Amino acid sequence: MKNHQYAIADYNLKIAKKELTDIHFLDKSTDDIKKPAELLKTFLLKAFLDSQSLTIRGQQIAGMMASFEENALSFLDKNAPLSKIGFYNIALQLLHFQVGEDFLIDNPITKMKDLNLPVADVNDEMNLYDTICAWYLLLNTHNKYGTTFVDDLASKGYFAQNLNSFSKPLIFNGKTMPVYDTNNLIREVVYVEADQDTDNDGKLDLLKTEIIRPKESNKNKVPVIFTNSPYNQGTNDKDGKDLTHNVNIGLQHKEPNNYSYSNIKAKNNKEKLPEPRTVEGKTRKAEQTLDRELSYTLNDYFLARGFAVVYSAGIGTYESDGFRTTGDYDETLSATAVIEWLTGKRTAFTNKLDNNQIEAYWSNGNVAMSGRSYLGTLQIAAATTGVEGLKTCIAEAAISNWYDYYRENGLVLAPGGFQGEDADVLAAETYSRKQNASEFYKNEEAWQKQLAKITEGQERDTGNYNEFWDARNYLKDAKNIKADMFLIHGLNDDNVKPKNVEQIWQAIKPLNINKKLILHQGKHIYINAFQSIDFTDMINLWLTYKLLDVDNNAPELIPNVIIQDNTKEQTWNAFNEWENPDSIKTLHPSQNNELIDDFDHGKKQFKDSVDSKDFQKYCLDYKKWRNDLVLDREDNPLKDNRIIFKTAPAKEDFTIDGKVKIQLNASASQNFGMISCMLVDYGNDYRLTETPKPLGHRINEGYLWREDSLREFKMKMQKTPYKEIAEGHINMQNRSNSYQVDDMEANADYDMSLELQPTFYHLLAGHQLGLVIFATDFENTVRGNQDIKYTINLAESNIQLPIRKQ
Amino acid sequence: MKNHQYAIADYNLKIAKKELTDIHFLDKSTDDIKKPAELLKTFLLKAFLDSQSLTIRGQQIAGMMASFEENALSFLDKNAPLSKIGFYNIALQLLHFQVGEDFLIDNPITKMKDLNLPVADVNDEMNLYDTICAWYLLLNTHNKYGTTFVDDLASKGYFAQNLNSFSKPLIFNGKTMPVYDTNNLIREVVYVEADQDTDNDGKLDLLKTEIIRPKESNKNKVPVIFTNSPYNQGTNDKDGKDLTHNVNIGLQHKEPNNYSYSNIKAKNNKEKLPEPRTVEGKTRKAEQTLDRELSYTLNDYFLARGFAVVYSAGIGTYESDGFRTTGDYDETLSATAVIEWLTGKRTAFTNKLDNNQIEAYWSNGNVAMSGRSYLGTLQIAAATTGVEGLKTCIAEAAISNWYDYYRENGLVLAPGGFQGEDADVLAAETYSRKQNASEFYKNEEAWQKQLAKITEGQERDTGNYNEFWDARNYLKDAKNIKADMFLIHGLNDDNVKPKNVEQIWQAIKPLNINKKLILHQGKHIYINAFQSIDFTDMINLWLTYKLLDVDNNAPELIPNVIIQDNTKEQTWNAFNEWENPDSIKTLHPSQNNELIDDFDHGKKQFKDSVDSKDFQKYCLDYKKWRNDLVLDREDNPLKDNRIIFKTAPAKEDFTIDGKVKIQLNASASQNFGMISCMLVDYGNDYRLTETPKPLGHRINEGYLWREDSLREFKMKMQKTPYKEIAEGHINMQNRSNSYQVDDMEANADYDMSLELQPTFYHLLAGHQLGLVIFATDFENTVRGNQDIKYTINLAESNIQLPIRKQ
Repeated sequence: MKNHQYAIADYNLKIAKKELTDIHFLDKSTDDIKKPAELLKTFLLKAFLDSQSLTIRGQQIAGMMASFEENALSFLDKNAPLSKIGFYNIALQLLHFQVGEDFLIDNPITKMKDLNLPVADVNDEMNLYDTICAWYLLLNTHNKYGTTFVDDLASKGYFAQNLNSFSKPLIFNGKTMPVYDTNNLIREVVYVEADQDTDNDGKLDLLKTEIIRPKESNKNKVPVIFTNSPYNQGTNDKDGKDLTHNVNIGLQHKEPNNYSYSNIKAKNNKEKLPEPRTVEGKTRKAEQTLDRELSYTLNDYFLARGFAVVYSAGIGTYESDGFRTTGDYDETLSATAVIEWLTGKRTAFTNKLDNNQIEAYWSNGNVAMSGRSYLGTLQIAAATTGVEGLKTCIAEAAISNWYDYYRENGLVLAPGGFQGEDADVLAAETYSRKQNASEFYKNEEAWQKQLAKITEGQERDTGNYNEFWDARNYLKDAKNIKADMFLIHGLNDDNVKPKNVEQIWQAIKPLNINKKLILHQGKHIYINAFQSIDFTDMINLWLTYKLLDVDNNAPELIPNVIIQDNTKEQTWNAFNEWENPDSIKTLHPSQNNELIDDFDHGKKQFKDSVDSKDFQKYCLDYKKWRNDLVLDREDNPLKDNRIIFKTAPAKEDFTIDGKVKIQLNASASQNFGMISCMLVDYGNDYRLTETPKPLGHRINEGYLWREDSLREFKMKMQKTPYKEIAEGHINMQNRSNSYQVDDMEANADYDMSLELQPTFYHLLAGHQLGLVIFATDFENTVRGNQDIKYTINLAESNIQLPIRKQ
Repeated sequence: MKNHQYAIADYNLKIAKKELTDIHFLDKSTDDIKKPAELLKTFLLKAFLDSQSLTIRGQQIAGMMASFEENALSFLDKNAPLSKIGFYNIALQLLHFQVGEDFLIDNPITKMKDLNLPVADVNDEMNLYDTICAWYLLLNTHNKYGTTFVDDLASKGYFAQNLNSFSKPLIFNGKTMPVYDTNNLIREVVYVEADQDTDNDGKLDLLKTEIIRPKESNKNKVPVIFTNSPYNQGTNDKDGKDLTHNVNIGLQHKEPNNYSYSNIKAKNNKEKLPEPRTVEGKTRKAEQTLDRELSYTLNDYFLARGFAVVYSAGIGTYESDGFRTTGDYDETLSATAVIEWLTGKRTAFTNKLDNNQIEAYWSNGNVAMSGRSYLGTLQIAAATTGVEGLKTCIAEAAISNWYDYYRENGLVLAPGGFQGEDADVLAAETYSRKQNASEFYKNEEAWQKQLAKITEGQERDTGNYNEFWDARNYLKDAKNIKADMFLIHGLNDDNVKPKNVEQIWQAIKPLNINKKLILHQGKHIYINAFQSIDFTDMINLWLTYKLLDVDNNAPELIPNVIIQDNTKEQTWNAFNEWENPDSIKTLHPSQNNELIDDFDHGKKQFKDSVDSKDFQKYCLDYKKWRNDLVLDREDNPLKDNRIIFKTAPAKEDFTIDGKVKIQLNASASQNFGMISCMLVDYGNDYRLTETPKPLGHRINEGYLWREDSLREFKMKMQKTPYKEIAEGHINMQNRSNSYQVDDMEANADYDMSLELQPTFYHLLAGHQLGLVIFATDFENTVRGNQDIKYTINLAESNIQLPIRKQ
């Protein structure tokens, strides 16, 4: 284990005393204590719960060793001087490190430092103040299982023994503590009236909104975490599957156009909306309840800490009105409508018939959004409206421009693992409104029309950026963002690719808002249950600052950019910026298949088609395809289907920081073509898994409340010969941009330039950087298995690497 | 989905009326209803929760279709005649089947029957009584997600709306309903004083015992489910790993002995025990609490239903006294001690020091045990003592004889996936007492001695059955079993192999107890969250009968033997017996590598050693080894390391029911040797996965209580060329039995006979049955890679198949 805690707030003796009093470690009974050992024993007795007898607690303290000679109880009972070593011997055991197995009893401080756990700056022989400060810091220190000691105590019932005795909210070291009764949460449903009529039934769409909030919120307003998840009310997996597009079709020549952006700029054709419903009455009592919601464990964590959590699935989902649109402004509106209701600016009703209004009287008007993937996407969508009350987004693996999700440079490009998916498939999948049989039959015809409109708009046959996609590009409106943005993305996310986070990160750079970025080594995952980083604590610090207005210094404590290293387990580094290279290094492909400083003359060819047996195989087994593509063995079926250029083995470590750019001069044997480029780290070595491994330990989000499972990326058990760093793909007719179609003739040379997905990749000394140039990407592009040959002119091609020294 | 419900109790109108009244579907308000449609509407309104407004409930009813023309609300409001078709249209929607996607609105009854869901025997135009009966049956019918409609309602809050209004326990259709408040369970720890001093400290061992029980149990006694899990307080994985034995060592010649059973019969050397502690006081108030226990979801289900659940980890575990022994009588005693306390016959204390006695005053004295693997094993151990109060065991994948877990016929044989594990490894792994640092240091020397005793006793160098193993063979005492036995085992369990369940099943056959057996197609798994079988309901019916003394006919309703078919998804069949073949078919190996009716002359040879590269590979990749062993391709490295005999393709389906016996006459080129036999189903076909696949749906064990995940075995996506049916292994020097060592000379012929693991295997027409004879089993035996050749005399060898016609 290697700990990284960014969310420990600064403290001093005064703060420690005050806050230890707030959480009842210090009280009248401790006022008269004169000896550090006695004070520590009192702390331990409290840590082992007042609700247990003194004998039991003594038994538990005696279970720990204070030194080789003595158990903690007899040691403390002597009231001898308290050494720093003795304190941290006990401390490590409280943090669940095992004597013998995890550390040696005489060397706890070295162990703390090895594990990157904070050690209090106290005297070797601790005085009373040292004891207070060290105990305070210990409570805020992560244990072996990725939670702070104080959260661990909470999960054992420390606060639950007497919830009513703590002030609410209770802030400790800048973070909100779990002092709310999760057994008695209020669970209710309302219907928010949005300014839209997406099913054209002449009535404004009502959006089912689920609320879970502490009962205290009836009296004292609470902050809100809102998760807008189109999946939350169920999905139509079969419909999605049925609609999935055939990708085994050929690329075709596209008629050139002379489009400039104005040709495809999305129009804002506002239709006249129906009148809002007439409010017939007003109530504080919801009429509908909800059973087990589809939750996100990070939200569960905050429910125990007094935040309200709100789920809404949006237009066209189960028990809501309207139709799915996959990412256009109407979907944004159905997100902001809920926020407007939460901030008192919009009407909601208790049911769909009686027009009985219900307000979010329990909301303090400060809203954060949370969630990953589509759920993160809708955070960005909502933020770009500048909607009031949305204080921050915790957007994980979010799409910032739907074109970058389903397309690339004039090509249809599937999200990794989902070949044939498209905007229409996603719309059909999330149209859970149809799970209500009456709604299904009533709306079937209109829905099929809507779906056909999406299919038409997405224009799979061209792959071009068009009005449809422009209407689904949030980057255009990034300037309107007022919410602070906390972005999280996996550098290996091949579903929502890193370009999505990079573009929004760049777009908000000029804005006067707080912005944070975490880049991890995972694919499309959550990181709120990791052993090596205190993500959940950071979000707690952040939301305590943003939504509870506690001045905890969160913007300064949390680094602007945190990036996980790809060469070692459990290693995170803080930076001021991403895409901040020291230099751009340009290399040229050579006849000898090298990447070299000078340019070389000549041409290299590759073909695209494979024999039909291999074709079948690769369609089913992308891993096999990728191995054959990347591994430059002579005996492999793809040896003529790509060209590989490699650098010499690196003399020292360096980092590729940002977007690698490829300049190509190339021709195809047909009047159409696509080129794919992959940047590869060649070198037989141990590498991290991209899917976190459960460590077999439960994380409690409160006391006997919901749970998560501790995870971590681990080194793979075996060495691997390569690792893909980044990819890019381009339709040769979209050399200018993704909406303008250029002409193309067979065997004519064209210049083009291509940016790969942005990255932050630590290349180890001895490894080689490789550039693989090919056409069909079995996992992502269409697969026509067409007879096309491609030729690259070496002298006019290069690769530009943004390099950061290690 | 294909439903199998064995736990629907018989009912009639009278029962239906009474029980629908008990759960408040019938009450005064329904007395005056004259029209079936009105009655159904009333039922539906109640199903959608009294706590919701009428408008909301109407909205939800209107969401369903009653016919193509009409939604359920408008249909029922007309009060027109209620057709059976209309009823089941609505019923299927209540069971979460989707109109259009799952069924057609005009054909619900065919769909119900296709899904194997029960349809009430009512008139096509239903009268009031029909409506009552059909609604009653519907409440007891499984929905799309593997739970009964009434349990689904419970998880939505049906009972939770007003828990106090229901009688407790509440029995519905013979099963106990979740009407207990899981938010206010009592959680306490006591220390049971057992009649043993396994750490020889001069004091009887105190066993930490965790109790979770409904608060109602303070007033009314409740039944108890006891899970004895040595893993429950943590494990020392590193210690286990460090102790794991090297298996890459050669087999050796063993000195012959003339042992009869009396030579190795376990002695009952009772040592004099310390005096029990003097009781200093008596209390009803426990002093220690427990936070989140390591639970089993089946137990969680029963906590919502008013059962107490008790966990104890036994001697040598965290916060208990004593040392681990891996399966001997002392471990049995630490299980029965808890049962004795639960039935008022043994003392427990509130802590380890004060001798303050606490009784299980809340227990009704009826105890069931539950759990899988080691947890099931200790059920069998406890049952063989005949301990009073233990009414039934729900033993899943349990060991009945530890020799059958770690050894076979004079060979060391690892549980699948755990090469090098042995009794000592398991003892070290489960010695969680050491996680208490003081206990670790205090007892380290004595514990190492105890561990050495186990290592010595298990006698890895011979692999023989000896006193050590005899002391860990529960079958000897099976005759003492008084508890009813519910046994569950996976036919593909290569960890606890099927022989374990088969032997205990045979051993209890003569006893005058109730016995049930379920054999599934999984490996070492739980089956309490499957879509296709109502396992949890059956256990509910069973425990309601056994522990609550409700006369629900459980022994008659639940078939004696339920076996899952291995050729189709979601197919279970009921039988009266296992191992009940119609005939024994004897086949002989031939020179042509066939299995034929007549015997053939000649010999066949195979060698054991492989080249060192293959050796390394197979040690790491058992799947690869198995494929090379079984697939009779000429190009594979193991072609000379085994002989394969096959039957002609089967003309029709048949089932192998029980233990296949192999008679061999064989020699080895050394004066020692082992022979392994594998029965294989050859035939390129789709087969079931052995690990259940999560279906992506949550199962609620109550209302906002703990959860499980719906699972099912699915057909693999691709065809596989073979499936292993059963294996057996024998040390050629243990030809007589597992404790007598016979002499052996190199190249001399010996007769031996070998039983494979018992099975129940449906072989499809067109498939071939194969017998693979080899020596080293990379996954299970030692792997000496020795230069040995084996010769089989065909004429004196045969295979005897217990055949059951399909």
